[in-house]
Amino acid sequence: MTATLKDVALRAGVSTSAVSRTFTAGASVSEKMRRKVEKAAAELGYSPNFLARSLTTRRTKLIGLVSNNFHNPIFLEVFDLFTRGLQDRGLRPLLVNLSDETDPEHSVQMLQQYSVDGVIVASSTLPPAFSKAFRDKGMAVVNTFGRYASSPDVHVVGIDNAEAGRIAARELAARGYKNVGFLGGPETATSTTDRLRGFTEEIARHPDMSCSHSFATAYSFQAGRTEMLRLLETGHAEAYFCGDDVLSIGVLSAIRDRGLQVPQDIGVIGLNDMEIASWQNIALTTIHQPIRQIINSSVELMVAMLDEPDRYPEARLFPCQVIERETLRPRVQTG
Amino acid sequence: MTATLKDVALRAGVSTSAVSRTFTAGASVSEKMRRKVEKAAAELGYSPNFLARSLTTRRTKLIGLVSNNFHNPIFLEVFDLFTRGLQDRGLRPLLVNLSDETDPEHSVQMLQQYSVDGVIVASSTLPPAFSKAFRDKGMAVVNTFGRYASSPDVHVVGIDNAEAGRIAARELAARGYKNVGFLGGPETATSTTDRLRGFTEEIARHPDMSCSHSFATAYSFQAGRTEMLRLLETGHAEAYFCGDDVLSIGVLSAIRDRGLQVPQDIGVIGLNDMEIASWQNIALTTIHQPIRQIINSSVELMVAMLDEPDRYPEARLFPCQVIERETLRPRVQTG
Repeated sequence: MTATLKDVALRAGVSTSAVSRTFTAGASVSEKMRRKVEKAAAELGYSPNFLARSLTTRRTKLIGLVSNNFHNPIFLEVFDLFTRGLQDRGLRPLLVNLSDETDPEHSVQMLQQYSVDGVIVASSTLPPAFSKAFRDKGMAVVNTFGRYASSPDVHVVGIDNAEAGRIAARELAARGYKNVGFLGGPETATSTTDRLRGFTEEIARHPDMSCSHSFATAYSFQAGRTEMLRLLETGHAEAYFCGDDVLSIGVLSAIRDRGLQVPQDIGVIGLNDMEIASWQNIALTTIHQPIRQIINSSVELMVAMLDEPDRYPEARLFPCQVIERETLRPRVQTG
Repeated sequence: MTATLKDVALRAGVSTSAVSRTFTAGASVSEKMRRKVEKAAAELGYSPNFLARSLTTRRTKLIGLVSNNFHNPIFLEVFDLFTRGLQDRGLRPLLVNLSDETDPEHSVQMLQQYSVDGVIVASSTLPPAFSKAFRDKGMAVVNTFGRYASSPDVHVVGIDNAEAGRIAARELAARGYKNVGFLGGPETATSTTDRLRGFTEEIARHPDMSCSHSFATAYSFQAGRTEMLRLLETGHAEAYFCGDDVLSIGVLSAIRDRGLQVPQDIGVIGLNDMEIASWQNIALTTIHQPIRQIINSSVELMVAMLDEPDRYPEARLFPCQVIERETLRPRVQTG
């Protein structure tokens, strides 16, 4: 059995509150008392326990890390960066899997029972009602990869998805594509809606270009492949801006299965720049979403909110850039 | 502020112990007392808090889920299955990232401070000293994907890696390959050592076959690609058994970059059968490791250990099978 605070108090012959104060930064405790407590703690192999201490401070240092997509490899990078960032600040990520969850209330209860100090919702596809429900119960909430406008009371860290759509459109225009398509993620995801809006707005500025769009049922390889196989049957565009990288890889697979070549017959540009996009047998041209900066900033914002729960909500948006690999034809030479 | 057990006790006019008993399964409490407490709890929006309760029961329901490889996509599936399995049993996965960790003592302190009830080490590459250090501090430990023999005091759930090596050798023999190679993961990983041993043992039973081996520096795409590019310079085998799927995909990429075809020029068989192995543009022939069954069993074993900490250590090993896709030539017709 691990020694408890009470065991230390008994052995040192002091109150439990004295033991607690000894292990709390900034708390008042006499030098003599501190020595007594530290001696007893050392003898019992006691190490100060954040969870026990949390009953006094009402802080558990537990942060719920909510995800609902375990089929998109980008999330392995997301978990890596979040766990490192939280660990480095003495916080601990409680991984919460809401893949099949439809009821925000149930998720709220789960997180409340575990007394998390805050919740990071790392998703652009979980309905905004979830983040709102967490916030309404007084939890500190950061929605990483979320949308600012839809729910202004929740802090958001991510990219300007409409601008990402415009970047994709400008890139296709610069390469001389005329008839282009958007093959998005789930129609209900805010990231899909915003990327489509920016994309079509920018294409509309080019009178010689036309644009179609359709949606995959999920951000996953098979969903991208299935939708592209359908488009190849019914008539396809010259180039596609895909909702993200994993969809793009499904799209590449469908195109090549029909004996067509990329980029000679059809061009593809993705979004995220996940590790697999750079694998030499994928070599996907894509829009880099700076996830390292986004996640560092999300962790910093969470730390700030723990000290200042009523902090005025903000959106932190990071710029994207095109990473050229092998799935779009060369830029048109001008001048 | 969330209501605490003490707030409920004050409002109900009862002791905190009475409130605690009301929310503890099997504890003795009068019907009248229970009604009083439940009324106060409802009025205050109090939900029983596992962490607070843990001070009495010494149970936190927190399970450390330790990983040290966030570059191998198989771990996204591993996290998905573990989080679902633990959540379904009222346990909560605290994700612990030991990617750059070399000091078991530091990891022990981290887990102790957070009062986890148990630790699942989901790795075949973390040195056995880590699992042993956790166990020595009295934590319940399950080493998923571990090796039974190396540390008999730690529970292990996984596959018989030597047998997996034999399966790979038999499969290559059945397809008429004579000069074969093992391209393993890190030389220090128990999974690498055992797969190599089984593979060479089985090849030795075929007098007409010969076998070479080498190691990649990590279970990652780039490590597999780099090692295969080296082999293509110095002389290569007819077919390779690769340490796992992500290495195999790096190997496929290297082979095709040199203008060679799979399986016509070189055959490849992997191990794991992760989701990406089944992507149609990868189509990797591989040995299926039943990770769903392995993870369910790991969770069940952890639950059992929480009730019976001194449980006699066991190894739970699950059979593997070959999944045929497109990276080995056909079996030789016999009779």
